[in-house]
Amino acid sequence: MQLNISFLFLQKKIGQASRIYLSILCVFMTLTLSAQNGTEEEDAFFIRQIYQNALTQSSCYSWLTDLTTVGFGRLAGSPAAAAAVDYTHKMLDTLGVDSVWLQPCRVPHWVRGEKEQVRIVLPGKKTVELKALALGNSIGTGSGGITAPVIEVKSLDEVDSLPEALVSGKIVFYNRPMDPRQINTFAAYGGAVDQRVYGASRAAKKGAVGVVVRSMTTLLDDVPHTGTLNYQDPDQRIPAVAISTNDAEMLSDLLKQSEVSIYMRTTCETLPDEESYNVIAEWRGTEKPGEIILVGGHLDAWDVGGGAHDDGSGCVQSMGVLEILKQLGYHPKRTIRCVLFMNEENGLVGGRAYWEASNGNEEFHLAAIESDRGGFSPRGFTAEGHASTFQQNYKKVYQWEPLLEPYGLHLRLGGSGADISGLKEQKGLLFGLDVDNQRYFDFHHTAVDLIGAVNKRELELGTAAMATLVYLLDKYGLDEK
Amino acid sequence: MQLNISFLFLQKKIGQASRIYLSILCVFMTLTLSAQNGTEEEDAFFIRQIYQNALTQSSCYSWLTDLTTVGFGRLAGSPAAAAAVDYTHKMLDTLGVDSVWLQPCRVPHWVRGEKEQVRIVLPGKKTVELKALALGNSIGTGSGGITAPVIEVKSLDEVDSLPEALVSGKIVFYNRPMDPRQINTFAAYGGAVDQRVYGASRAAKKGAVGVVVRSMTTLLDDVPHTGTLNYQDPDQRIPAVAISTNDAEMLSDLLKQSEVSIYMRTTCETLPDEESYNVIAEWRGTEKPGEIILVGGHLDAWDVGGGAHDDGSGCVQSMGVLEILKQLGYHPKRTIRCVLFMNEENGLVGGRAYWEASNGNEEFHLAAIESDRGGFSPRGFTAEGHASTFQQNYKKVYQWEPLLEPYGLHLRLGGSGADISGLKEQKGLLFGLDVDNQRYFDFHHTAVDLIGAVNKRELELGTAAMATLVYLLDKYGLDEK
Repeated sequence: MQLNISFLFLQKKIGQASRIYLSILCVFMTLTLSAQNGTEEEDAFFIRQIYQNALTQSSCYSWLTDLTTVGFGRLAGSPAAAAAVDYTHKMLDTLGVDSVWLQPCRVPHWVRGEKEQVRIVLPGKKTVELKALALGNSIGTGSGGITAPVIEVKSLDEVDSLPEALVSGKIVFYNRPMDPRQINTFAAYGGAVDQRVYGASRAAKKGAVGVVVRSMTTLLDDVPHTGTLNYQDPDQRIPAVAISTNDAEMLSDLLKQSEVSIYMRTTCETLPDEESYNVIAEWRGTEKPGEIILVGGHLDAWDVGGGAHDDGSGCVQSMGVLEILKQLGYHPKRTIRCVLFMNEENGLVGGRAYWEASNGNEEFHLAAIESDRGGFSPRGFTAEGHASTFQQNYKKVYQWEPLLEPYGLHLRLGGSGADISGLKEQKGLLFGLDVDNQRYFDFHHTAVDLIGAVNKRELELGTAAMATLVYLLDKYGLDEK
Repeated sequence: MQLNISFLFLQKKIGQASRIYLSILCVFMTLTLSAQNGTEEEDAFFIRQIYQNALTQSSCYSWLTDLTTVGFGRLAGSPAAAAAVDYTHKMLDTLGVDSVWLQPCRVPHWVRGEKEQVRIVLPGKKTVELKALALGNSIGTGSGGITAPVIEVKSLDEVDSLPEALVSGKIVFYNRPMDPRQINTFAAYGGAVDQRVYGASRAAKKGAVGVVVRSMTTLLDDVPHTGTLNYQDPDQRIPAVAISTNDAEMLSDLLKQSEVSIYMRTTCETLPDEESYNVIAEWRGTEKPGEIILVGGHLDAWDVGGGAHDDGSGCVQSMGVLEILKQLGYHPKRTIRCVLFMNEENGLVGGRAYWEASNGNEEFHLAAIESDRGGFSPRGFTAEGHASTFQQNYKKVYQWEPLLEPYGLHLRLGGSGADISGLKEQKGLLFGLDVDNQRYFDFHHTAVDLIGAVNKRELELGTAAMATLVYLLDKYGLDEK
């Protein structure tokens, strides 16, 4: 049986952000499947085996339980991160692939220090405690803390537009919510996260002494969400914290009634860089070992939680791909490599080390698949690639949709993953595992990102989806390099 | 803009149950979309508004919070069910549709009585308490309870095949798990639930004195799942309970080591039938009021929990469809009817009363959409219909896929819902809201089916999906009656 699909398509997109619109582009598609010789049946049979194994024999949930325990709070440079490197190395060693090794990289080492104290100070000195977490890479306030009046803004631009006299000496409170109207929560995140990443720098330029950011979630709850900030000018660094969305609502209400100050005390700091590692397992191909198919996630996670969804799930799913294909007695034609990247959260040092070495050595990654959107029910893959080869390559993999559709998987255009983005110049295809994302930002970068938030079957189905795509890529390759 | 889609398709199906196979049928599809006059853009714009309203203005999560509280444990015939009728009637009255009324139906009134006591009794009289729930419609053991040796089986057929001497006087333990290899958990449920529904009758025929059934879930945990049983012979009724899957595993292990008896004491009973109601809200169409589009769920739920997913979600989503379309200033051409059915769980009296009256009055339901698979992320709709019209009707609605796809919605062949199944003879289309079903049987028929298990956005997206399909059905109708 052979698939012949000819098509010309323009992907439909849901309009971004806050404006109400939907642009539908024309779709012309002629799709013909002709049964010829049984290959498609073989593929369907093997994929069914992948799924059945994933749902009954996979270690991925058990690994994740361990990883979120031994590697609890495994921010790059921490002892927990080192323990996570050891643990996953050991587990990969049990899988019987050709080699497992550590790729060194020097990572930043940010530590949170003592529990943050953040309080609203009302006229008359009444105080209200806020649920807060310092932002990653933030400096501390010093042990005495700081107190300053608060000014609320909704955007970086708003800060830029304010007279310096209004901002100077104040704590700037960024309170633009993630847009709940977005269907894709990652789009809502993308539309709000600039406040967390650049808010401190932009406020510092105007003389602010500190920053408070509304947590990045569509939920209204009491859970603060940390995440990284970037100081754009090393001489203008001010301390920054995230507060829960309920506290952000309260603070905003109070500001409508009276002047409000905030006391914040954080003792976070950046220690000297540490040696750390990407963990890599390689299963060499029998026919085309020079064509690499990568599966990966990032091993580091924020220090306050288990990193179960972000991104323990992506790590154990990538490990699980090797395990399942081994269990099924598969012999890859091409080289399958599982890479657990270090320091995605606050530096991307591991990803960069990997792709710089790979590009420098003129390796060819036929494809790379990253899972970093949580261990939720898979919906398919987003794909991107080099402009010179992408269309042809995507057309090829799009032929496999009939094999993916029974599992609720669809292919669409979109980003892949931060850690693999630098492999694009090798002109293979880059994929991101696409999952149901409605719940992701309930847990992202929090103390509640724990194993109990991950559903075992949903995790396993993601492993199966990745193993399926690896199988098809390995068997059929791509036409264009 | 106009859609012209010509296609001939055979739906792919994943093979059922325990054998490893996948049959892929040939797919021939030619799909052409041609932009002509803006209608599709209008539709896309309106659908986008539906989604934005659902995610920001819908009352459905708030209603569900109330319904799971005032109507906690709202099994048909109970005071909680009466309270749920009152509450939803009141809420529907606020929506400004043409009329809201109660359709009477006499429902069975089963009560659980005192907390079940179910214990393993080991040689030497040592006992182990089991987490158990009596099955709905079961008789009680009498206040003294019963004690009998246990025999484990895996199927109804196995009981049928056993000599009466082996079964007589025993408690039969049905322990065939839901098949974890099924991707669709409803298929796994369908493959195991005969033990719960018919197990007591089949065991009674062989002289058994009681039945213990492994709970219907793929999870291994401590939560027992109730659900209805059917006594096939009113003179051969024996008491039946479900135990948690962890307890089922333990019991099975113990039976491998020694003889095991079970003591069970249940005081459940069936009281005289009660008067109850379907709750119906109608918004009459301006152009074709005789063509009815129904949205619905069932209002009753098991007595031990909040019935948040099963089926409070379906009820509030159906109510939410009216609310959203009202908020958007929509004026339906056809009649939109929201129906909250009573007694789906242990009798289907409400559903039957509705369709018998409707068929008897020669009403025409152009379409009926039931949501009864939990308030999870929507994936589309399953559709069925009368053999004489289904193909043509389905072909028509399949043209709308390009409008649904941006929201991750797809149409596929499949069942609709128990409460609307009797409307098929009206030759319209019957739909079931299709959702991500991996987590449903973590909560189904349990004490943990509470509001906290429902994600607000996922619930709202289901409301939007239903409102979208209602909008398209109302605007374009169907070609065939």
